[in-house]
Amino acid sequence: MAMALVRTPPSATHEQPARRLARLEQPLVLYRGGVIEQAVVAYECWGQLNAARDNAVLVFTGLSPSAHAASSAEDPRPGWWETMIGAGRPIDTSRFFVVCVNSLGSPYGSSSPASLDPRTGRRYGIHFPEVAVEDIARAGREALRTLGIERVAAVVGPSLGGMVVLAYCAQFPGEVENLVTISGAARATPFAIALRSLQREMVRSDPAWRGGNYEPGRGPRLGLRLARKLGTITYRSAEEWQERFGRQRGAETAGMPGDFRPQFEVEAYLEHQALRFADTFDANCYLYLSRAMDQFDLADHGGGSLAAAFDRLGVQRSLVLGVETDLLFPVGQQREIADHLRAAGGSVDYHAFPSLQGHDAFLTDLARFEPAIGGFLKRIGR
Amino acid sequence: MAMALVRTPPSATHEQPARRLARLEQPLVLYRGGVIEQAVVAYECWGQLNAARDNAVLVFTGLSPSAHAASSAEDPRPGWWETMIGAGRPIDTSRFFVVCVNSLGSPYGSSSPASLDPRTGRRYGIHFPEVAVEDIARAGREALRTLGIERVAAVVGPSLGGMVVLAYCAQFPGEVENLVTISGAARATPFAIALRSLQREMVRSDPAWRGGNYEPGRGPRLGLRLARKLGTITYRSAEEWQERFGRQRGAETAGMPGDFRPQFEVEAYLEHQALRFADTFDANCYLYLSRAMDQFDLADHGGGSLAAAFDRLGVQRSLVLGVETDLLFPVGQQREIADHLRAAGGSVDYHAFPSLQGHDAFLTDLARFEPAIGGFLKRIGR
Repeated sequence: MAMALVRTPPSATHEQPARRLARLEQPLVLYRGGVIEQAVVAYECWGQLNAARDNAVLVFTGLSPSAHAASSAEDPRPGWWETMIGAGRPIDTSRFFVVCVNSLGSPYGSSSPASLDPRTGRRYGIHFPEVAVEDIARAGREALRTLGIERVAAVVGPSLGGMVVLAYCAQFPGEVENLVTISGAARATPFAIALRSLQREMVRSDPAWRGGNYEPGRGPRLGLRLARKLGTITYRSAEEWQERFGRQRGAETAGMPGDFRPQFEVEAYLEHQALRFADTFDANCYLYLSRAMDQFDLADHGGGSLAAAFDRLGVQRSLVLGVETDLLFPVGQQREIADHLRAAGGSVDYHAFPSLQGHDAFLTDLARFEPAIGGFLKRIGR
Repeated sequence: MAMALVRTPPSATHEQPARRLARLEQPLVLYRGGVIEQAVVAYECWGQLNAARDNAVLVFTGLSPSAHAASSAEDPRPGWWETMIGAGRPIDTSRFFVVCVNSLGSPYGSSSPASLDPRTGRRYGIHFPEVAVEDIARAGREALRTLGIERVAAVVGPSLGGMVVLAYCAQFPGEVENLVTISGAARATPFAIALRSLQREMVRSDPAWRGGNYEPGRGPRLGLRLARKLGTITYRSAEEWQERFGRQRGAETAGMPGDFRPQFEVEAYLEHQALRFADTFDANCYLYLSRAMDQFDLADHGGGSLAAAFDRLGVQRSLVLGVETDLLFPVGQQREIADHLRAAGGSVDYHAFPSLQGHDAFLTDLARFEPAIGGFLKRIGR
């Protein structure tokens, strides 16, 4: 398998013709005490808001994607969940008004370390206030309110998005009747913290990071590349790679002693994924969002008790999906979420899929995820 | 849990009063074509060689330890397998002459990138020839021959050592009657290759590596630290850390935005492990041994067939041990080794332990490993 290691032109990825910006009128007061003036929340949407304004499905994303979850007339490029969202698709735009929110702190349009501080006209960089998972949830809700939406039909979130939807319900109890959490977590495990801490250290150790004070386009590309390689390793599974790459070798290196360049196909794959990320993502945004995931603990909303926190969410119906090969958000954490939601009195559908693709299975093993999500959403209001 | 992040003084770790050096008379011809002149193999030994010279148990190590597997009168410091080796212990020195070999390519006394090239009087560095797992096995055998030992009672190896013992039998078929392989592999998986490739890239990306041409003591300490953190993550298990650290926080950082210093106990633990390694291990040695593990494929000794390679080993009795939580050398690989050894006609004891400590369990879960190894060795020659 040959792979061209071509950089994605930044201009191509930064054009987001379908992106809309919700400009918040009030300062956004953050969970850990900071304030963002003139905060902006980027989103894309599909389908029509009904007259009762009660058919919105709110989608939160993982760490790295933008709000471009699906194509549209304005932006025909396939989105990161292209076959999940559309007319007649699992998240059915002939019925729902679907809003995908770009996370606060992400570089794709929402207020973040990469955006301009309106008070100074300069990029926030490392002076951006600390972002919590709770703030990503709140920012998404504020975006909906600019559209006159007070209640949502469902909130949906994979990975980091799965943490966000729990934080949403915890902060606005009773507002969410239908919840879909996919390979998420009620709190970060020490194993996941260890991995993310090391990824952040790789970024911070790159001299080009300059304590967070790099110029746009001149950030710690090496650090981001290394961090993304580790991410890619944890997003997939050993089983998938055994099937996909085995011990296949790519272009042989000269074989001289001291030559440690990549030799196996799996190494070329990692390099390809890493370059794509390093060319498009902002390093400080990465650090902020990564740290937010470590800090998140739903038990903080229950006086230290996870059970108490779940008791307060007020969710009536939940779909909890996980993957048996997931290293980073292991299936035991999904079972824990399902058990707590059930104990809190809600109706819960729980599936642990045997997909080989690990944490990323919600992006690739659509034969399993689409029917589960489509079936759950079909039953809303019926 | 507070942990002092004190550097181990290099002098303390480099003093090896019990270490012996086997100086090979013939040039050591390596598996991938290189030659080492005046090669040296470091080892330590315990117990007495019997008159028949047939009671030797040869122990190979993992990637990082020295030959100091156990204490002795000459060096009373506890070794890395202290309670495994000794009079009345599982590897019983009242019966066996136990030899632990420092791997060729490791910085603890055997010929390696960190040792002096007798032709130039300078350190080999990156000019050391490529080391294969097969060479580590051959060097161990050559060390025994300098002691007049032609056959061994058993070879024992955990981790990298588990690869080495297979390479030993493959190169010298029929010489090993009793084999103990612990959390080893018949060949590296693409998942393990991906992790080690990333670790090597962290080392090579550190400007202090200087293409391998750093001065002693001025090597890529940052790169080694990062690589060892990733190693530590893969040597243990998510389950162990959940029990051991949970979400405990250490010294709180100031909590300023943009402050990404460690905060959780698990991060302090990683830092402690990483510093200890970066202060004692040579970076080029690390790269050579890491690469050797990726390259190893026992099937190379069977014309591409793993079954054919195992058929030729001529091992009569084997003990194969693995750990269910091992991420890096997963239990499926241990089962594969056991199945092949059995298919080749040998008697095989296989245990998959439910230890929580992952790949490192052979160092820590001694309540399981000691009886298994002791019981197997007791039955030799009886």
